[in-house]
Parts: sequence; C-alpha cells; structure tokens
Amino acid sequence: MSTNSQRLRLWRNARLATLVGDDLGIVEQGAVLSEGERIAFAGPESDLPAGMRDRAETVDLEGRWITPGLIDCHTHLVFGGDRAHEFELRLKGASYEEIARAGGGIVSSVNATRAASEDELLASALPRLDHLIAEGVTTVEVKSGYGLETRTELAMLRAARRLGEARRVNVSTTFLGAHALPVEAKGDKDAYIDLVCREMLPVVAAEGLADAVDGFCEGIAFLPEHISKVFEAAKKAGLPVKLHADQLSNLHGAKLAADYGALSADHLEYTDDEGAAAMQAAGTVAVILPGAYYFIRETKQPPIAAFRSHKVPMAVATDCNPGTSPLTSLLMTMNMAATLFRMTVDECIAGVTRNAAKALGKAQDIGTLEAGKRCDLAIWDIERPAELVYRLGFNPLHQRIWRGQ
Amino acid sequence: MSTNSQRLRLWRNARLATLVGDDLGIVEQGAVLSEGERIAFAGPESDLPAGMRDRAETVDLEGRWITPGLIDCHTHLVFGGDRAHEFELRLKGASYEEIARAGGGIVSSVNATRAASEDELLASALPRLDHLIAEGVTTVEVKSGYGLETRTELAMLRAARRLGEARRVNVSTTFLGAHALPVEAKGDKDAYIDLVCREMLPVVAAEGLADAVDGFCEGIAFLPEHISKVFEAAKKAGLPVKLHADQLSNLHGAKLAADYGALSADHLEYTDDEGAAAMQAAGTVAVILPGAYYFIRETKQPPIAAFRSHKVPMAVATDCNPGTSPLTSLLMTMNMAATLFRMTVDECIAGVTRNAAKALGKAQDIGTLEAGKRCDLAIWDIERPAELVYRLGFNPLHQRIWRGQ
Ligand SMILES: [Zn+2]
Ligand SMILES: [Zn+2]
Repeated sequence: MSTNSQRLRLWRNARLATLVGDDLGIVEQGAVLSEGERIAFAGPESDLPAGMRDRAETVDLEGRWITPGLIDCHTHLVFGGDRAHEFELRLKGASYEEIARAGGGIVSSVNATRAASEDELLASALPRLDHLIAEGVTTVEVKSGYGLETRTELAMLRAARRLGEARRVNVSTTFLGAHALPVEAKGDKDAYIDLVCREMLPVVAAEGLADAVDGFCEGIAFLPEHISKVFEAAKKAGLPVKLHADQLSNLHGAKLAADYGALSADHLEYTDDEGAAAMQAAGTVAVILPGAYYFIRETKQPPIAAFRSHKVPMAVATDCNPGTSPLTSLLMTMNMAATLFRMTVDECIAGVTRNAAKALGKAQDIGTLEAGKRCDLAIWDIERPAELVYRLGFNPLHQRIWRGQ
Repeated sequence: MSTNSQRLRLWRNARLATLVGDDLGIVEQGAVLSEGERIAFAGPESDLPAGMRDRAETVDLEGRWITPGLIDCHTHLVFGGDRAHEFELRLKGASYEEIARAGGGIVSSVNATRAASEDELLASALPRLDHLIAEGVTTVEVKSGYGLETRTELAMLRAARRLGEARRVNVSTTFLGAHALPVEAKGDKDAYIDLVCREMLPVVAAEGLADAVDGFCEGIAFLPEHISKVFEAAKKAGLPVKLHADQLSNLHGAKLAADYGALSADHLEYTDDEGAAAMQAAGTVAVILPGAYYFIRETKQPPIAAFRSHKVPMAVATDCNPGTSPLTSLLMTMNMAATLFRMTVDECIAGVTRNAAKALGKAQDIGTLEAGKRCDLAIWDIERPAELVYRLGFNPLHQRIWRGQ
C-alpha cells in the first residue's frame, strides 16, 4: 500500500488511546506516523523505525492525547425545515392534535424535505455537520427517511454523499425508506413496504447511493413482518442491514436484526436478555442513543448490563434528527451515555471509535490507531481521556486529521 | 448620560427580543442604537429619531435576532484541579469511601484551589469563561468557596475580578465562605461560621471583592442558624445575600433567604409552596440549575408550577463547578430547563437575561434592551428564539456586543 513517493507525517511526544484490544489501548509515550492516507505506525515512540522517523515531517504534540477520529454512526443529518416551533408549542402544553394542526410531527419534516431541492438539503445539513467536525468527527453516517417517496429518498442520499465532497469527512449513507408511513399511503403499510422493496431499494442499490439499509421497527412505524421484507430485499441487493429496534416497546427487534446478521441494532431501550444474546451471537453492535432518550424523557434505560455480560459491542451516537434529538455534539452524547446510562469512560470512548466503526461495517478501515487503517485522528488538549466524557459544553479539540492531513 | 462626543452605533433590520415587560418583548422590524456604552434606543426601526440614525455607524443585520447579552448568574468558575478522574471512578462503581481515598470529593477541589496561585486560578478559569462568552454571555457571576480559609477565599475573588479585566465581560463576584466545612475545622461548624463572619467577610467587604454573599444551606453543609449568622454579617457589611437552598432536602432555605430579602435563592428542588410565596413577597429570584440536577441524577424537580403561580421570577444558570455541574454552556442549560423541567422557551430566555439580571441586583443596568441600559447584545443566526432552546450542541451566535463594542 505504500510507495516511496508518499508523504510521511509524524505526530510524536503524544499520549495515545489507540483503542486496539478491549480497552482504550493507552500508550503513554506514543507516536503516530502516516504514509499518505494511511497509518504506517502507531505505538510507543521508542518502537518507531528510525528510517521512517528521519524521513517524516514531524509535529511535537507536547504530551497531548491522540484518539482515532470520532465516528457518529447514527444520524439523520439531512432533512428540510426544523421543529423548533413544535418544541415551543409542546412546552406550552399543546396536545399532539394541536401540534399536528400547526403542521408539526414527522409529517412536517417530510413535507419540508420533499419541498427542498438537493442543493438546499445539502446546504442546511452542512452547519450541523460542521458542528460535529469541530469536535473531532472524521466519519459520519447519514440516513434517508424523510422522503418516503423514491424521488426524495434519492435526493436525501445524494445530498448525504455530497456532504463527503463538501467537507473532509467520511460519509456512510443508509437507506431508511421504512422510517414512517407517508400520509398518501393512507394507512396501508403492506403496500408502502412493497414500494420500498420493489421500487426504492433497487434504484438506491443500482445507483450505489447506500452503504446499508435500515428500518424503524415499532408499533407507530413498521412491524417485524414488514422489516423482514425490507431485509430480504436488502440481501438481494447485496446491502448490509441495521435496525431502529425496541425503542418504545419490545417487538423483539434486536433479535430480528441479529437473525439477519445486522451490522447494528439501535436505541434498544426495551431489548431483553434474549435479544442481547442473539446480538452477541450475530456480531451485531448495540448502538446506544442517549440523546433521544433525553429529549423524549424516556425512563426505561437500555440494558447496558446485559450488553456487558453478553459482550455485545456498544457504540454511542447522536441520532441527530429534528424531532427527537436535535443534537450535534458527540462529546455531549458521551456525557449523556455516562450520566444517564452509567456507561464507563472507556465504553463511551470505544462507542464513538472502535465500536462505531463496527456498527458501520468499517472496522477494517477506521476506529483504531493501527498500521494499515486510515489516518483519521483527533488530537486533544486534555490530561486524561475521562475529560472527553466528564465535561459538558467544552470542546478540547486541538486538531483534527483526516486521511493523514 | 450622553455627550456629543460619544460614538453612535446602529444595528438595524433586526428582529428584537427586548425582554421588556413580562414576555420576550418581540419587535419584528427593530433597531438598537448605542451611544458609547449605553443603549440610546431599542424598538421599532420606524420609531428611530432621524437625527440619531444619520449620525450612527450602521450595521444591517439582515433579519437576524438580537437579544440582551446572556447572563450566567450562578457559577463556581474559579477553582483548582478538576474532577474527571473521580467521575471516571464513580462510573466504574467506586464507593464514596474509595473516591475519598483516591483524593476525590470537594476536599480535592479545596486542596487544589489552595495549592494554586491567583495567576493559576485565573488561567484555569479563562477557557471556561471563553466557552460561555462564545455563546453570547456578557455577564457572569463567580463565587468563591473552594478556599474555606481567608487567604484562598480572597485569592479566588481576586482571580474572579481579574476575569473581568482579561475579557470583555461583566463579572459579579459572590463570597461563598459558607460553602463547606474545611477538614481542619474538625466538624465544628459553629467555630468555622464564626471565622467566616468575623474574619473573612469583613476583609472581603473592606477590599470590595464581593458584590454579594452566599451560603449552602443543607444537612451536608450549614444549617439555617449558621446561614442566619452569615446573612447578619453580610447586612452589617452592606452586602446583599443569596442562598443555595433546598437542593437535597427541605430545610426551608428559600423562606430563610426571603426573610433576609435575598436577591436569589438557588437550586430549590425541595422548596415548598410557602417558600415560593415568601420569595414572591420578598422579590427573591428563583435560580434554576438543571445542570446539577442532571449530573447528580436528582429526580425531585424544582416546583416550577408554584413559582409560576406565585409569579416568582425564574432565572436559569449553569452552576458551573467541578463536582456536580462541569458545564460551560448556557444554551445547553436552557435546553435542560425546558426538557427536564418543562420551562417554556420564553421562561428559559428570560431566565438568562431579564431575571438573571435581577438575581444579581443589576436589573437597572443589564438584562433587557432598553434605553439607558448597557449595550450588551447577542446577535443570532436564527429564524425564531425557540431555536436557542431547542437545539443541543449548536451555537448560532453571529456576534456579541459588549458595552456598545
Ligand atoms: Zn434514528
Ligand atoms: Zn452553586
């Protein structure tokens, strides 16, 4: 993978949280060396081959910490409009009917997204992406799901892909046609799921617009039988799957996702022990979304202890979306995972690096500091990694490196 | 107050939340004109006297919103060390004894604060202050209370005053000697309160280092009888008082504060209806601190409905401190007040402007957009004020103006 013409860069006199292994993989006197876009060496500075050291452009980090660039593995970053007014009405005690009459709810996001051009979708998502990037995010997943018709689902995915051209960031896209039932379906979930499977998904796959397929398995969205159809169609199209599972009730979505070998099952507040065991067996990552839990004032917590005892890898993500998690800070999300769910510092940091990479099926490429992976780094002005989780409203990012630059 | 030599500046084509009156005081086609450090006009652009308009340097805000500069009226911004390691140990399930053995708890902040020089206290507080300022804060209150001995209490207050020289921000200082019992007092609260009243407070007052006096009324801190002594000493020194009241139990701290005509009572999770009524009668502001509620995972909410029905003005503040609220975002704090306590958008915004000014005894000078007040402004890239409360991890500040500049 290396050629003699590729530029070598060295970050030395650093402390590393490599995330290699099961914990933070701390190296106290560490260095990272890049060759082009990839890491050529990450480890104790004393182990650095002298030949490499001499040829590299060198930065002395004066003891700062390096982690892998952060990964937000579950977002709905692309959408039209916002829901600030609905939030305001709710606080004034408005009923759901009143909010619906005022144009609120997911319908309002669908209408605003359909009304927006692809350029407008891109432009409105960029400031949200920029806030993530400002905190060291180097990879972001973006879902469709506010189009609920072929044309707009495609526009959302194209806008998501273009985020990765407009900014120095890796973008993973996920097709979420099975997010909600559009008004024009008039309650016929079977017919809409047919449309998703026979029309939308094949076009999305043919145009290479999605890296994975997702669904929302819940009474207010789609039943397991619908999700199975979507997953079968995804398999046919050669795309891996994920699932919004067990957020508001236990429809055994985690188990269903595992049965299909899903990359991840997400939310999981109502997942039971059987679901956790199935996820472990299938290698399915548990994506914990404390922002949505916080915003909707949920009281049922995801079964962190069960995921721990079954050794299910846990990721942590913002779930950035206009309705239930208008959140664009992965650092704050880590604090919520710790404060609300008692996830440890190591679990939170692994959740936005190593395990988030797994949740995207990109563990071979990103998520740890080791030779061969992309050189995506976050460099922090901190004394210990716990500071990334402990503080709120504070951004100690010193520098972000994406693909060696 | 105005002279012909003073510079006039005009911000026009703006939407204003003046906070004059009982609500947001919205002006859709508004302008603010400053003369030197003061506001000379704030209101509908059509009402602006032509003579002023012609002489002013003018900025077209293209429909952006102007609010009064934000006021964080309750912080412990100056302290030594941090408590990230303790946070990490707690998440791993360490007991209070284990944390104490590892040097944790408020004792660790007291030790680190005593070990720091005044310059070091200033330097470590500045990044925290800078995060507040970056979100449009133009006034911040800072308490002592990690010294618990005369020398260090004075050093904290001097460092706090110097924050106001190092940055373009108004600083209100509060003497909080009665924050906790120092180890060397060996459990003798009476003797320590004597030291606070007879030694510390007179020196603090004589040197003009405090704008108010505060205490922590709680079983784990000081009883009402101790607080009464501190308040009597404050009265003698001519200083207004405030109180950390009813946070963990109902010792009728709110009532006690009101009995002494306190500027504010703060926290108030356990305050009862009688306390709220007494606060109303005394003009005492209720300072709501959702950050501490969130961090300590409190479940008892402050009686917002009682404050509303008694018409007690409510402020909202970060309570930034290393142990129970390592929070330096007032925007996030507003979101917490809304999400966790169902405060409305208008209440949250009044809580960091008009009512926060009242809580500091500075309502004549700051907190609203009206002629005669300091020209402290926050200019926002938003479509409606609700966006300041609805989003998390997003900073739409366009520009901050402090004293007309
Ligand atoms: Zn989601
Ligand atoms: Zn406090």
